[in-house]
Amino acid sequence: MNQIKPQLPKGMRDFLPANMLRRQYVMDTVAEVFELYGYEPLQTPVMELHETLMGKYGEDAEKLIFNAQHPGGKEALALRYDLTVPLARAFAMHESELTLPFKRYQVAPVWRAERPQQGRFREFYQCDVDIVGIAGMEADAEVVSVVVTALQRLGFNDFRVKINNRKLLTGIGQYAGLSGEALSSLYRSIDKFDKIGAEGVKQEMIKGGIAQDVVDKIAQLLFESQSSEAWGYEADRAKLTRFGSRLADIPAAQDGLAELASLYGYLEAMRVDERYVELDFAMVRGLGYYTGPIFETMLLSDNPEERVGSVSGGGRYDDLIGLFRKESLPTVGVSLGIERLITIMEKRNMYPANLKRTVVEVLVTVFGPDTRAHAMRLVSMLRQGDVKAELFMQDAKLGKQIGYADKKGIPIVAILGPDEVKRGEVKFKRLADQHEVIAPLSTAAEAVTALLND
Amino acid sequence: MNQIKPQLPKGMRDFLPANMLRRQYVMDTVAEVFELYGYEPLQTPVMELHETLMGKYGEDAEKLIFNAQHPGGKEALALRYDLTVPLARAFAMHESELTLPFKRYQVAPVWRAERPQQGRFREFYQCDVDIVGIAGMEADAEVVSVVVTALQRLGFNDFRVKINNRKLLTGIGQYAGLSGEALSSLYRSIDKFDKIGAEGVKQEMIKGGIAQDVVDKIAQLLFESQSSEAWGYEADRAKLTRFGSRLADIPAAQDGLAELASLYGYLEAMRVDERYVELDFAMVRGLGYYTGPIFETMLLSDNPEERVGSVSGGGRYDDLIGLFRKESLPTVGVSLGIERLITIMEKRNMYPANLKRTVVEVLVTVFGPDTRAHAMRLVSMLRQGDVKAELFMQDAKLGKQIGYADKKGIPIVAILGPDEVKRGEVKFKRLADQHEVIAPLSTAAEAVTALLND
Repeated sequence: MNQIKPQLPKGMRDFLPANMLRRQYVMDTVAEVFELYGYEPLQTPVMELHETLMGKYGEDAEKLIFNAQHPGGKEALALRYDLTVPLARAFAMHESELTLPFKRYQVAPVWRAERPQQGRFREFYQCDVDIVGIAGMEADAEVVSVVVTALQRLGFNDFRVKINNRKLLTGIGQYAGLSGEALSSLYRSIDKFDKIGAEGVKQEMIKGGIAQDVVDKIAQLLFESQSSEAWGYEADRAKLTRFGSRLADIPAAQDGLAELASLYGYLEAMRVDERYVELDFAMVRGLGYYTGPIFETMLLSDNPEERVGSVSGGGRYDDLIGLFRKESLPTVGVSLGIERLITIMEKRNMYPANLKRTVVEVLVTVFGPDTRAHAMRLVSMLRQGDVKAELFMQDAKLGKQIGYADKKGIPIVAILGPDEVKRGEVKFKRLADQHEVIAPLSTAAEAVTALLND
Repeated sequence: MNQIKPQLPKGMRDFLPANMLRRQYVMDTVAEVFELYGYEPLQTPVMELHETLMGKYGEDAEKLIFNAQHPGGKEALALRYDLTVPLARAFAMHESELTLPFKRYQVAPVWRAERPQQGRFREFYQCDVDIVGIAGMEADAEVVSVVVTALQRLGFNDFRVKINNRKLLTGIGQYAGLSGEALSSLYRSIDKFDKIGAEGVKQEMIKGGIAQDVVDKIAQLLFESQSSEAWGYEADRAKLTRFGSRLADIPAAQDGLAELASLYGYLEAMRVDERYVELDFAMVRGLGYYTGPIFETMLLSDNPEERVGSVSGGGRYDDLIGLFRKESLPTVGVSLGIERLITIMEKRNMYPANLKRTVVEVLVTVFGPDTRAHAMRLVSMLRQGDVKAELFMQDAKLGKQIGYADKKGIPIVAILGPDEVKRGEVKFKRLADQHEVIAPLSTAAEAVTALLND
């Protein structure tokens, strides 16, 4: 066979062990928070039928979906684009086996063929929680609280969950006399606020055919909440009241505002710290399927290197499951942008000081051919005692073996020379402080555990 | 949008929460054993470049590979077929960042478009350990020991790791005057022993153009080890000696036998229980890349429903990494057939009695609209105290709420009526025995933890 250059597909990554241990710490922390809130694990296949995914995300998004097929296969398959449409499909398939509300989490990769760039990948992990079957705003408040707790447990305190409502945006469109495609176009314009600012958005709206006076009205409504006024529960309540009186004649807007008022009541009841939430009427979210409250979390960092975009997004999508069953069911969920969070955590070195570089707790060195069998017996005994142990397998002097442990970050080495063998003992050396203990073979595992914890 | 029938791709599965908790228990147990042996986690992408996978598995296998591409994409991609070729590719790409030996594990799905049937899926998990960079048989003995320990920790004691050597098989082929395609054909015939028996294999060999007297010689060599003779280290050593004298003139056979003798020495030194290993000269392993010792684990069950084929396989493949770098590196590894093991564990109900059906530890009931805010505050306090808590979110009488907890398997309910609210207390009820405790709100989390553990 010809030699080929080892290469990865564009935008995809290998994770080597030390990196994996950091990623596992992040994912485990997030999954633990999801379970604290009572979400249960669900797993769906990496591939879905092509028709399951199509028509859910919008045309531009669907160009990024990877198709899959096997030679001679009749099924048109595709790699999942997110974890939400697969949830809706899976729920509709298995609902007779499930109890409502169905609260599930999934921490898993998704695939999008976006142009690879700094911090953007074609295979990346999403961490989602969703609640199927609850129409009340308790559910929406809970998923906001999940995001806040997850970010706090990862060590973040400079973030804000921005909250808006699609019904309210629809109401604003009606107020401006827009619906259908014109409304979608309005959403897309508003969505660019972070990139092009209020003036840019206004120009886009005018280009989109909205009259100047309507544009001014919309802009006034949307962007005044962007100015540096007071924030917190009281300020947000005042915003809701102000908006309510301006859009008093627009039923969709009133519905959206009522949902937001209820949501805010529950956020306070759940003691969600007001530092972490903020109404933002100019926040839209790209995906087409949202129907009620929407959420998007930004880091507040001033450091331009940390401007990674939103680190969490979600909302209510009461119609999606209806694409797979006769009647739809109310559903709300959020997704944590775990890859972006990891990028920031790497930059800020936010990992616990005692996070391991290697899983190995002790390296069992081999003094020479005569003691190899004894070393093998020792390594087996340690593993039986639940100590993570590696046997040194090459021929090398003791100093080189200890150097190998040091390089890999293994905290302890076991030394078993002819004298130790004769006495039925083993010497353990902790490399950080060169502290040594000698233990009888029969209590070797306990000795290592003591050295690790002391 | 039109409603579509929710469907899964052929041979692929969703795992609902209760099932996921069982699968996680199995995968966590296996990963823990891998870490006890000092293997580190590596993660590679689900897709590889098509050319990375091709030419490694044999033509028949490669027909089963799923191809992937995005519209307009130039890269021909494929979903990984196993975890071994991706390891070789990843090692060759990152070797400057890695220390030798490189011991890695990976627990991850792979895809093969086989005809779906009972217990065979198109997306299934593999659990692999491999050691890169060690030529000595210590490494081979270690991966056998990993398999034995993993199966034991899952609760199996009726299995046997069959051991053979490709060099020995090559030697047997040379003894019969075969090489190249004729040798591969011989392997394929022998590989069918379990299905068609010794006579069937002999007939296949004759059809393959091997002379009757040679067939008889080979059959005598291969299948006498199948007869019900004594097993254990002593019996296997005797087999090696007997074989050694019969194939004294065949260097390849001698090399293979010497490797096996060394391997057996290390198995004994590592105290691998002789009940679990056995030489089997008629065991071949399908894949093309093996070069030395090969391993395959069978359950010894007499129950026809438990005849699932091998539950672990592996071996030494010293040439594979050489397809991705100038010089190859000695490598050995094994893969656990986790899906088949799970099938058996389900049939035998081998899960721990205390394995949970739900992650939720306590359901916080809601007495009525007036106490909802108090219930929300309680659920937040419980989560802060690391108790996995769910808030009941529908309108229902208390009895129905408790019924929901019971149905889902939630062990404890929290009851917070107007009286409890007035007194700043909460009542917890353990559903299994109706035991109740009343705790002040400030120590609610501790009260639940005590109820769970007592």
